[in-house]
Amino acid sequence: MERFVEQALLYDFYGELLTDNQKQVFEDVILNDYSLTEVAEEKGISRQGVHDLIKRTNKLLLEYEEKLHLVEKFLHIKEKVHHIHAVAEQAEEIEKAILIQQIQAISNEILEEL
Amino acid sequence: MERFVEQALLYDFYGELLTDNQKQVFEDVILNDYSLTEVAEEKGISRQGVHDLIKRTNKLLLEYEEKLHLVEKFLHIKEKVHHIHAVAEQAEEIEKAILIQQIQAISNEILEEL
Repeated sequence: MERFVEQALLYDFYGELLTDNQKQVFEDVILNDYSLTEVAEEKGISRQGVHDLIKRTNKLLLEYEEKLHLVEKFLHIKEKVHHIHAVAEQAEEIEKAILIQQIQAISNEILEEL
Repeated sequence: MERFVEQALLYDFYGELLTDNQKQVFEDVILNDYSLTEVAEEKGISRQGVHDLIKRTNKLLLEYEEKLHLVEKFLHIKEKVHHIHAVAEQAEEIEKAILIQQIQAISNEILEEL
């Protein structure tokens, strides 16, 4: 997965476990693409300070995922729901009985994981 | 939702954010139904101590859910996947085109939430 997408996903899932300061700086630099220098000036801290804060926040978000694996779980379910959607999309070409069988098989797989 | 089911779900999602001690006591008392007295003896702490630890752990788990809402999100998706499954189950009675329409509508709803 692209680094930015991964960071945005982790933040989307676990961001609320961060402090307000960690959230603000992470949003400014990573999500809204402000420079370290800009954020450092705004916050009245050093550029290195902003850099360290981001590094620490990335580490925290990754630690939450290593413990809970919820982003992984969600992505996996999303993939399977996409599969259901794709099967229904191609349904013109397959028999109704087979369509039903496939939808049931995939939805069963999802329910076993939920 | 039944209290025990809710506690078990919250523990399943956020248990890994607890300390080893919190995990052990929560599992013993809530999930494995040992008495406070039994766990107190095993841990060498007072019955009140075990009670307080459980109370604190329940509070922590609820706080994680209040911040992240991931159990709520999962339950909602589960309900919709059950719906897909039910639609496929009753598919004999409905036309293929309507079946496809329904499956696509529900899977779209899920994907919008994921």
